[in-house]
Amino acid sequence: MKLPAYIDMPFQKWKESFSFFNEVSVRFSETDMFGHMNNVIPFIYFEEARISYFKNLNMMKQHKQTMTVVASQQCDYLRQVMPYEDLRIYVKTSAVGSSSLTLHYLGENSAGEPCFTGAVVMVQVSKGSGKAVSWTNEEKEKLLHTP
Amino acid sequence: MKLPAYIDMPFQKWKESFSFFNEVSVRFSETDMFGHMNNVIPFIYFEEARISYFKNLNMMKQHKQTMTVVASQQCDYLRQVMPYEDLRIYVKTSAVGSSSLTLHYLGENSAGEPCFTGAVVMVQVSKGSGKAVSWTNEEKEKLLHTP
Amino acid sequence: MKLPAYIDMPFQKWKESFSFFNEVSVRFSETDMFGHMNNVIPFIYFEEARISYFKNLNMMKQHKQTMTVVASQQCDYLRQVMPYEDLRIYVKTSAVGSSSLTLHYLGENSAGEPCFTGAVVMVQVSKGSGKAVSWTNEEKEKLLHTP
Amino acid sequence: MKLPAYIDMPFQKWKESFSFFNEVSVRFSETDMFGHMNNVIPFIYFEEARISYFKNLNMMKQHKQTMTVVASQQCDYLRQVMPYEDLRIYVKTSAVGSSSLTLHYLGENSAGEPCFTGAVVMVQVSKGSGKAVSWTNEEKEKLLHTP
Repeated sequence: MKLPAYIDMPFQKWKESFSFFNEVSVRFSETDMFGHMNNVIPFIYFEEARISYFKNLNMMKQHKQTMTVVASQQCDYLRQVMPYEDLRIYVKTSAVGSSSLTLHYLGENSAGEPCFTGAVVMVQVSKGSGKAVSWTNEEKEKLLHTP
Repeated sequence: MKLPAYIDMPFQKWKESFSFFNEVSVRFSETDMFGHMNNVIPFIYFEEARISYFKNLNMMKQHKQTMTVVASQQCDYLRQVMPYEDLRIYVKTSAVGSSSLTLHYLGENSAGEPCFTGAVVMVQVSKGSGKAVSWTNEEKEKLLHTP
Repeated sequence: MKLPAYIDMPFQKWKESFSFFNEVSVRFSETDMFGHMNNVIPFIYFEEARISYFKNLNMMKQHKQTMTVVASQQCDYLRQVMPYEDLRIYVKTSAVGSSSLTLHYLGENSAGEPCFTGAVVMVQVSKGSGKAVSWTNEEKEKLLHTP
Repeated sequence: MKLPAYIDMPFQKWKESFSFFNEVSVRFSETDMFGHMNNVIPFIYFEEARISYFKNLNMMKQHKQTMTVVASQQCDYLRQVMPYEDLRIYVKTSAVGSSSLTLHYLGENSAGEPCFTGAVVMVQVSKGSGKAVSWTNEEKEKLLHTP
């Protein structure tokens, strides 16, 4: 298996580095005429998992003056996902820059098999000016060291 | 063909009473595992057709203090719709109340066959208070008599 | 509160007649620029609740030669739904015809307040011919008397 | 402007290398509570543009025994997109492997400003076995040299 560039370690090690996850069941309306989950859907799951992750870090309410916007995101598809499958969408911090943040994602089926992986680069910006706002040290700590 | 309750005239007559329409092509992501357009999708098309209809009546910009919210909507499915089909989504005013509005919809394929019909009841409300706001006579005229 | 035509009893009595429900949390991508859940979304929730309901009745696997298609569906909006709200989507059989089926829906927030209601008319058809197929007596019993 | 890794030339040159495009208008239901186009939506537009591109190359009907599946896709967000904006979704072949294909995307607003860019890696597989199937020379020519 050729790994995406953002996975810079053996897959098994990368997989074991996740702990936080969301659960989701693939909806009928999320299938397409090919009979499986449409390729657009993981990005919906990623968005929800990311929000749950931020809520879990208590980082949703603190940032009234700032918001965290998506600069870039990617999904790699490893295995077909069928209707009504129960998935775990894992999310973890991969790297924290001065005002940026890279999260990694892993979508796993109920047999523990990886179905898709992903990465997103986000930037914290001011709601007023739209300009990048640096993370505080406390936020960096939280993002990097919360399991 | 048994008609939905909101079509209170012969179908052909009802069909001919429309003139305004939006064009839409069924997207791949709008299909489901049954191989056709998912049943949720007409409501997306209805929403877009309605907005185009209001824009065409020049009723989108005038109403800064009010918004028109959906109270109830319905879709009746007459014919399967396949991926990539080109549809016309017709919309017309059926009735105007003091602050309410009933629109009718007709989704037609490129052979001119009706695929689905619909109706929506909307209410104009104040953005501030959320309370119903009556249409002006000019608005009623516009909604009822614009072809 | 003016009731939709399909609710032919006092609302409280209608509400108490449900027991089966699905839980769903409103997704960020299901909001729109008005800041609340988009009006199309209840139909996605209805579809999922209906499938869960059929699975619970063990009526998904038995019908290899038939499928149940949507003839008509409706949603009535009672209360704004905000992002991340946890909803219960109740579903119950309202009526069973020879090959048709009317289900009712109720979407309730975590405070137990009704947010939207709905109804769907479905028809059981042959996968081969597309023609209506009558329910067996056993199926009718199941649909009508399972709590 | 820092370019995504897949743009290995000056942006202006990259931009001018496109000619095929789809037109799309951002739907109300494609906005989110932040008041702009939700981040998931470009992937829907990419999918449609890709299908139009293949149809234009007459590569949709020929491949009865094979299908082209998405292995990986990415979107980079450059500029907010507002409701009802008219976009052009450009698509072009970037590279062709033995059985793989890399397409690039550019989403541009009506002022000609780039709003988002993207890349997708696809693989042609057998519908029967799921195994990779090499492109014919004719297909490679078509994919690489059609403007």
